[in-house]
Amino acid sequence: MKTELERIAPMDIERRSFEIITSELPHPIDAALAPIIKRVIHTTADFEYADTLCFSEDVVAQALAAIRGGAAIVTDTTMAQAGINKRMLAKHGGSVRCFIGDEDVAETARKNGTTRSIESMKKAATVVEGPVIFAIGNAPTALVQLYEMIREGAISPALVIGVPVGFVNVVQSKELIMQAGVPYIVARGRKGGSNVAAAILNALIYMLGRE
Amino acid sequence: MKTELERIAPMDIERRSFEIITSELPHPIDAALAPIIKRVIHTTADFEYADTLCFSEDVVAQALAAIRGGAAIVTDTTMAQAGINKRMLAKHGGSVRCFIGDEDVAETARKNGTTRSIESMKKAATVVEGPVIFAIGNAPTALVQLYEMIREGAISPALVIGVPVGFVNVVQSKELIMQAGVPYIVARGRKGGSNVAAAILNALIYMLGRE
Repeated sequence: MKTELERIAPMDIERRSFEIITSELPHPIDAALAPIIKRVIHTTADFEYADTLCFSEDVVAQALAAIRGGAAIVTDTTMAQAGINKRMLAKHGGSVRCFIGDEDVAETARKNGTTRSIESMKKAATVVEGPVIFAIGNAPTALVQLYEMIREGAISPALVIGVPVGFVNVVQSKELIMQAGVPYIVARGRKGGSNVAAAILNALIYMLGRE
Repeated sequence: MKTELERIAPMDIERRSFEIITSELPHPIDAALAPIIKRVIHTTADFEYADTLCFSEDVVAQALAAIRGGAAIVTDTTMAQAGINKRMLAKHGGSVRCFIGDEDVAETARKNGTTRSIESMKKAATVVEGPVIFAIGNAPTALVQLYEMIREGAISPALVIGVPVGFVNVVQSKELIMQAGVPYIVARGRKGGSNVAAAILNALIYMLGRE
């Protein structure tokens, strides 16, 4: 195994990484989607995402308009919240909200026999005003709850990033959200994660300019 | 694609997930390491980790002793910090520190032409007292810095979790840390991440009891 380090300036590491990703892509990808697909691969070192990421029609333009308009981001985990570039998001007026740790959310989940993830989505639907982007990297129950609230007309998200990871109801929750009639970016299958959710959001934010 | 949800109580989802993981493992795994390997697969839905995770001799016993002894955890990202079960860690007296966002770290990195990741490890070596577990899920430069400080005798970590992800110096940094002579858990190759670092730590914490 090689242990000799490549000599490279810190500021050049990301550029070099994206060059390697581009050179190793399993097939050509849509130029409009490339920054998102490549950033997810950058975050995971997993080229499967070149095949599993699914995008609704015209979703990038819609997502960028929402971010530019100061849309709030709601995540299902504090990990996703931690991974989003909040400083650059704030330049467009947006901020990241996560209700999973709230005491009232835990209490309602206990009382209703549901999950904190479900109740955190319900709380978001009640307390967050204006356009909202949901970024779900962990809980399929959160994604199913969004699907139900959308179908009931209770919410109309500007974008749903649906990339929960796991083995129980994860595949199904992603298929459902793609039928909800709202803009989506979804990682089909079992894979995903809070890191993937954050990477997709950061890719969108960076498309509006890095400085 | 199936969209019919499996009916399952929230409290049973994790148990069911681990059953599925166990049934789909590509080969038998060491029983002492199984909780760690399975939790990483649970976090990533990626069975490659059954082959890439590397453990130093007797590392689980050493790691559990360190956590039980109240070892501090130092991460390279706020995402890893967010993902660790800090409530359960606190029961053993431990807490999670991350210096990546500190203003003095950013300033020193600028002055030295290094990375914030490198300087955050140097700061940890200076300010964190007692036994330390380093959990590196993002920056190979942080892992290389740890290697150098270990070789110089400046630090002697109770455990290094070396699971940065990426394309430049990531593979090499992991091979280096496995030669440093300290207890390690490493995901060989390009894959890893802050989520993987947190999952490994949580697996260890849960081995000491979930309640």
